[in-house]
Amino acid sequence: MTRKIVIIGAGNVATHLAKALIKEGYNLCQIYSRSIESARELGMKTGVHYTTNIDDIYKQADIYIFSLSDSAIAGVAEKISFENNPLLLHTAGSVSKEVLSTFSKNYGVIYPLQTFSKQRELNFREVPLCYDANSKSNTNIVENISTTLCDKTYHMGDEERKKLHLAAVFACNFSNYMYSLAEDVLDKNNIDFEIIKPLIQETAAKINDLSPKKAQTGPAIRNDKSTMNKHKELLGDNAELKKLYTFISNNILKFKDKDGIF
Amino acid sequence: MTRKIVIIGAGNVATHLAKALIKEGYNLCQIYSRSIESARELGMKTGVHYTTNIDDIYKQADIYIFSLSDSAIAGVAEKISFENNPLLLHTAGSVSKEVLSTFSKNYGVIYPLQTFSKQRELNFREVPLCYDANSKSNTNIVENISTTLCDKTYHMGDEERKKLHLAAVFACNFSNYMYSLAEDVLDKNNIDFEIIKPLIQETAAKINDLSPKKAQTGPAIRNDKSTMNKHKELLGDNAELKKLYTFISNNILKFKDKDGIF
Repeated sequence: MTRKIVIIGAGNVATHLAKALIKEGYNLCQIYSRSIESARELGMKTGVHYTTNIDDIYKQADIYIFSLSDSAIAGVAEKISFENNPLLLHTAGSVSKEVLSTFSKNYGVIYPLQTFSKQRELNFREVPLCYDANSKSNTNIVENISTTLCDKTYHMGDEERKKLHLAAVFACNFSNYMYSLAEDVLDKNNIDFEIIKPLIQETAAKINDLSPKKAQTGPAIRNDKSTMNKHKELLGDNAELKKLYTFISNNILKFKDKDGIF
Repeated sequence: MTRKIVIIGAGNVATHLAKALIKEGYNLCQIYSRSIESARELGMKTGVHYTTNIDDIYKQADIYIFSLSDSAIAGVAEKISFENNPLLLHTAGSVSKEVLSTFSKNYGVIYPLQTFSKQRELNFREVPLCYDANSKSNTNIVENISTTLCDKTYHMGDEERKKLHLAAVFACNFSNYMYSLAEDVLDKNNIDFEIIKPLIQETAAKINDLSPKKAQTGPAIRNDKSTMNKHKELLGDNAELKKLYTFISNNILKFKDKDGIF
């Protein structure tokens, strides 16, 4: 626990990870972010020194965690002159650990499979954490950190993690977008979004008992053309949304009789 | 509570509604279904007389609840010779109450806004129930039943209910389909679906604190082209799914800076 850790980034993932590290007694000694608002906000929340100046990043830390957008990781890493080959980790689902190999002999990944927003608290212990590193001893270090932070941890290589991340986009980002569309339909018709929340909760809760394929309900799976046509009518002149409605409905029906879509 | 009720249908909605009526002490006196398996199953669950013979449906009930697929309602109703203008109700989101006006002077709707599967128990009291009827006195009857069954009830006309149903398709059926796609990606790569359940639960729970638009995360909202391209690569030869991925990702980005999609 005496290892000095620096977090590079102060976004949604960095914020929750930093708070979890502090909570578990880790020596988080610095936060870097390009954005002064984000850096300050996370600095204040955690009581950790923060900087927006890349040259001010501590050179003697033991572990650097890059929690940045995928394309920013290498660019920021190359601007830091690391001393003594520290352990460099990133938190990205779709980025190979090798992206960090240019900057240190010791590198790996710590990928929390969850949707984080700064405004929402969650229990980090319940987040499934996927870890990986370039050597047995580094893997042990990351495994140790992971199991201290979270109850469910998975040793997972680059390729498997990328596929998990793709699945997460469908399960989380795309389903949340469906909620947005629902909210939009309700807003435009002055119906309170509250009314649909129990449905959203139950849809998600259901998959604890039933596989999503078995849990599928609605006009598309019943091939109820009359209802689907009414819905398309209600979407009016919005050609994009009609296309989306038709496309997904067709796929639900096709998917029904198949083993899988791949 | 002494009114005699017949349920026409023994599907997912009929099953949960019948159980709720029994629980609240209503006199559910018969269940009709075309399917002997469904009729028997629901009859056994509720201890209520069941039949698959449309001519055996009781003629002297006070209330008939049609819980059938949208296009089947009128066809079944016209085969029953109702006596004394009973109150006819259906449970469909997208069907006007007027579909029942040919068969009785008394008609209306009782629409539970929830996703039901026979295999999954749920607390019917927590289901938002939308009701409507053709007259003040019939509306009072349906309101009374609704408030007995559920804590949150809404008097809602045909047009409003149809829009709510459209929103429900996005929020529930389409988001569940996204879960199916995630499951499929994981299955094909021998990753246990369990790992992604906390993400699905949190995505749904989040909208209790944040509007879905504010809760949106992932590569599309960040316009992270590199990750999106990797994902499309992983989707391999599946042109349909690539199209879906691209289409939804583009829409998430467009939606970001708009007031709404309509």
